[in-house]
Amino acid sequence: MASAREFDSLRVVLVGARNPLNIGAAARAMSNFGFTHLRLVAPYELAFREARSAAGASAVMQAAEVYSTVEDAIADCTLVIGTTAVRHRELHHPLHRLEEAAPLIRGELVSGKVALLFGSEKFGLSTDDLSHCHWLLRVPTREEHISMNLGQAVAVCMYELARDAQATPSTNQDESPATAAEVDRLNSVLLESLEASGYVNPRVASSTEEKVRRLLRRMRLTSADAELLLGMLRQILWKLGTPERK
Amino acid sequence: MASAREFDSLRVVLVGARNPLNIGAAARAMSNFGFTHLRLVAPYELAFREARSAAGASAVMQAAEVYSTVEDAIADCTLVIGTTAVRHRELHHPLHRLEEAAPLIRGELVSGKVALLFGSEKFGLSTDDLSHCHWLLRVPTREEHISMNLGQAVAVCMYELARDAQATPSTNQDESPATAAEVDRLNSVLLESLEASGYVNPRVASSTEEKVRRLLRRMRLTSADAELLLGMLRQILWKLGTPERK
Repeated sequence: MASAREFDSLRVVLVGARNPLNIGAAARAMSNFGFTHLRLVAPYELAFREARSAAGASAVMQAAEVYSTVEDAIADCTLVIGTTAVRHRELHHPLHRLEEAAPLIRGELVSGKVALLFGSEKFGLSTDDLSHCHWLLRVPTREEHISMNLGQAVAVCMYELARDAQATPSTNQDESPATAAEVDRLNSVLLESLEASGYVNPRVASSTEEKVRRLLRRMRLTSADAELLLGMLRQILWKLGTPERK
Repeated sequence: MASAREFDSLRVVLVGARNPLNIGAAARAMSNFGFTHLRLVAPYELAFREARSAAGASAVMQAAEVYSTVEDAIADCTLVIGTTAVRHRELHHPLHRLEEAAPLIRGELVSGKVALLFGSEKFGLSTDDLSHCHWLLRVPTREEHISMNLGQAVAVCMYELARDAQATPSTNQDESPATAAEVDRLNSVLLESLEASGYVNPRVASSTEEKVRRLLRRMRLTSADAELLLGMLRQILWKLGTPERK
């Protein structure tokens, strides 16, 4: 079994969950397999209160934290993974089947924090939610009935993460990965630079923003490299912003 | 994917299930992973009717069969397995963890029929139910919180049974790594941009060049991402180089 410390580094993030039974079920499955940190982004208020006050609510449910945005919920995470039922969402993200994804996640848990995002029962994760993700994970359901119940999807993911936990590869990377907050800073400065350079067409600005966010997440930067790039971009941005002083 | 015929030989048997949501959830998970035969032994009548008439009830639920005894429900099966949360029930049965059990079950499905029994939410399988079983299966939950929700337990079992039966690698067309030449082009344009922005101090220019080269190689960019970054940097460089034309 992987150490408690490693399991302690996973954050299960439910985005826009609507059903108190599903929220409670997700918490219960986490508890069954040894994961403790549940985060809820903009849950239906009533659903959250019901789930928390339900008879037999797990300690995981009692300790669940609520955030208003995905960005806030993942700020301290070094790897952010979205779950999706879709196979080809004109995917701009790498997509891994759950059983391939689990060793990658466990590897990251050794040194960083991982957020695993689940979308709402009705709509799944939005394009905007996905733009915060480094890559996507898919539970291999069959083509004819792809969509899983939320509580069951969480249960299957927790099971798989705990399944071969003793087989966790030790990462030999001495560089700590960039946190989501560090990548966000880089994101802002890059976007400003692109705007100042005229790269961003205002008519499609939001799609460019998503493109940039995905690009930076795919890079899997270390903290040091994020810092280095940020310094470069700040200088470039300063120069772009001040042509008249030349 | 294991053949449909093999999956078709599994019977999931819920004994004394009381909650229509759990019955429906069990059926849904079976459907997600390609199993079709659900049998209910002495379900609470109302629960069964509710589960069957629920909006969105799966075809598996619609086709579920009701039996009055375990004996009848497993009569055509060649291997009968009970699920239990308990580790040591003064067990008179061999006990396998789910991941060890799955290959044994799949092996039997090639030539025979297998019944997988789940007990009621409240009491699990009785000693009498267990007496029909060849061996027992346990989902490896942690000692402090052993007992799973019924629908989630079924989901995890279905997932594990389907898990290695379909070992197709995930595909992603966008993932071919950038060639050295592509990274070199990016390298040149980034350096030019840094020079134009004043980031590069001429006295330490060669060390900056090395730093940039190492940085870009560490990123392990895909070909598509290298292309995207190149486009951004070219626009930035153009803007940096032409302040007077603004």
